[in-house]
Amino acid sequence: MAIRDHGDPGDAPSAPPPLCPPTNDARPAAAEQARTIAAATNAATLATLTADGDPWASFVAYGLLDGMPVLCVSSLAEHGRNLAGDPRASLSIVAASGDTDPLAGSRITLAGLVAKPTASERDEARAAYLDAVPAARYYVDFSDFSLWVLRVQRVRWVGGYGRMDSATGDQYAAASPDPIAPAAARALAHLNADHADALAAMARAFGGYPDTDTAICTGVDRYGLDLRVHTPRGVAYTRVGFPARLQSVGQLRSATADLARAAEPARGTGC
Amino acid sequence: MAIRDHGDPGDAPSAPPPLCPPTNDARPAAAEQARTIAAATNAATLATLTADGDPWASFVAYGLLDGMPVLCVSSLAEHGRNLAGDPRASLSIVAASGDTDPLAGSRITLAGLVAKPTASERDEARAAYLDAVPAARYYVDFSDFSLWVLRVQRVRWVGGYGRMDSATGDQYAAASPDPIAPAAARALAHLNADHADALAAMARAFGGYPDTDTAICTGVDRYGLDLRVHTPRGVAYTRVGFPARLQSVGQLRSATADLARAAEPARGTGC
Repeated sequence: MAIRDHGDPGDAPSAPPPLCPPTNDARPAAAEQARTIAAATNAATLATLTADGDPWASFVAYGLLDGMPVLCVSSLAEHGRNLAGDPRASLSIVAASGDTDPLAGSRITLAGLVAKPTASERDEARAAYLDAVPAARYYVDFSDFSLWVLRVQRVRWVGGYGRMDSATGDQYAAASPDPIAPAAARALAHLNADHADALAAMARAFGGYPDTDTAICTGVDRYGLDLRVHTPRGVAYTRVGFPARLQSVGQLRSATADLARAAEPARGTGC
Repeated sequence: MAIRDHGDPGDAPSAPPPLCPPTNDARPAAAEQARTIAAATNAATLATLTADGDPWASFVAYGLLDGMPVLCVSSLAEHGRNLAGDPRASLSIVAASGDTDPLAGSRITLAGLVAKPTASERDEARAAYLDAVPAARYYVDFSDFSLWVLRVQRVRWVGGYGRMDSATGDQYAAASPDPIAPAAARALAHLNADHADALAAMARAFGGYPDTDTAICTGVDRYGLDLRVHTPRGVAYTRVGFPARLQSVGQLRSATADLARAAEPARGTGC
């Protein structure tokens, strides 16, 4: 992940560093983050080019065909005319976030070229769109509507402040959405409500913050947990990873319980 | 409002026509809708041009300076570099909607050219951005961040299926956000929960549907109420307008009560 420094005037908040390296800070790759965010909703904003080459942002619904966004737009609409005139397009998709600061959440841009699907791909694209946008049954077969598949060539993921990375179209195509994602919000709430002690123990044992007083889970995915830790030195963010990537949501409970059990013996302020 | 017909294969649902013209179906103009939608949130998707002239969609936060979107983006970010390279931009803003079909909601595109504000406008733009995005106090003064003001030249409003219109930049600048909007959701819920009979009476007397059995309010703005009416002929949508445009949210209750009183005597199935 390429990091370049902001021109910081020096008055931004800072976090205390870990006292030892986190044991396993495995995280989803940008391509995985992007596949997961794309799979989580059916609404996005499309950027197309007008006849003058101006950028045109417009709200769209979409389905997914092997991760490729499927659009269904009318030639009566500006974005429909734009796609017919120039296949270059990109799609911005924003993950649902409970944060009051919109920029703290995750979002992606998928950029590439649209193409009208033909032969069997057309049926698959039509089915993918209808699956994601059931109300489209009223207009998908109007003669002025066309299906378009966005062949993704370039992916940009932003996971909030200071977390961002790029992926190629091939990496995006090869990645899969996180099967944990649909259960993540509920698991997170459960961990924070009922297992605060276990989270603090994980942060002490595996997160690099042996001086953790309390820890709050801020994210759950197939690779592990994001934790916000409160220490006498201040508030920091860390990561505790599962021993192996989870393959299904059914593995989440036991993987988390295993981490908690393994963390329990480790107490103190050393590494 | 220009209407062109979809190439309808004939199997879409249809609504029964009114039996007489609605008494007053005044509605917000596209420019007013756009100002209202822009004022209701602080997050949008920006379309810019890459160095290759490709369209790039990216999530942004924004403030408003006399309706003009104010952006604050880093030159380390792709959209920041894009704006510095080419000032053409557009912004898609989506109104919050409780509908499960994303395309049933309202959204706008504001298109134009960005410019870096100078002199006193810079302070106003900075204040407008900070007012809308308080967390920006941590980065607004980083040297890699620039403020940009989008000079709106062209506006497209889509209010859901079959409701859309355009406006010029001058119309957008001259319009104002609806002062009713912040109270609309609560007023709508109150009308539906406690005044169902009055809504049906309004639909019979003023909405053009004297055969209304029941009516549900689906929208409230400074010009009147949107109603979904259930009749023996089917379900339709209509509008009942206030006698004059409301100037403040304080006028909403009495204007609605006046409409209900005026509608009460009118019953029956004629016009």
